[in-house]
Amino acid sequence: MNDVTGPDCIFCQIVAGETPSAQVEEDERTVAFMDIFPATPGHTLVVPKAHARDLLEVSGEDLAACAATAQRVARRLVSELGADGVNLVNACGAVAWQSVFHVHLHVVPRYLDERDSLVQPWTPTPGDPAELAALAERIRA
Amino acid sequence: MNDVTGPDCIFCQIVAGETPSAQVEEDERTVAFMDIFPATPGHTLVVPKAHARDLLEVSGEDLAACAATAQRVARRLVSELGADGVNLVNACGAVAWQSVFHVHLHVVPRYLDERDSLVQPWTPTPGDPAELAALAERIRA
Repeated sequence: MNDVTGPDCIFCQIVAGETPSAQVEEDERTVAFMDIFPATPGHTLVVPKAHARDLLEVSGEDLAACAATAQRVARRLVSELGADGVNLVNACGAVAWQSVFHVHLHVVPRYLDERDSLVQPWTPTPGDPAELAALAERIRA
Repeated sequence: MNDVTGPDCIFCQIVAGETPSAQVEEDERTVAFMDIFPATPGHTLVVPKAHARDLLEVSGEDLAACAATAQRVARRLVSELGADGVNLVNACGAVAWQSVFHVHLHVVPRYLDERDSLVQPWTPTPGDPAELAALAERIRA
């Protein structure tokens, strides 16, 4: 999907009720609804009502509200669908697999059975301690 | 790593300064430090200082604080390391690839070059609308 805002943003349309969605919950700042391309059964998206492009741009208040909603949804996925675990994923930028440019959190229920075929996105491999220290120094504010 | 709490929890040890880490930042509720098994250069972990097993158990205040710290780190990964995007990932439960049972957010810088070899964990595939509606109904509080 394209990098759009305002009336052409599909998630703004869902928030406004102009495009239908299978809604899970709504509160003052956020809406949760089913991803129409589910990784597993129960895969839910959490978005702020206020448009923001991505993680870098969303307000602190909306980010906190999205995290709280995602936690509530995660608990329901476990209690109501019998999920064995959950992944939260945010994709910020096309290189990170963002395809809709209205910030969203994926809440993906994980299962120990055939409902689940996710692939671990990276293989944990030890880093070089000196390199890690140098990177931390650069990132540090 | 094992499912431990208290003095045997490696992230509690890092928070307490008893185990060294390449620290990126610290605030009242959280600590950010380099993942020693980095997916890409700059891969940072954000943890609450207070021990909680996972996303289901962490307090709302600590979850919000971790999200805020993760956003700050994400912005620094872009501004200081030149990341082209970022993934936030939380793994809740062994089935979801959780290996340290002190809740943490992965902040993974993404790059358009050879520094990045992540694999998309699922392939977006359309779901059945009736099934999505039925699942939303079950998840809804």
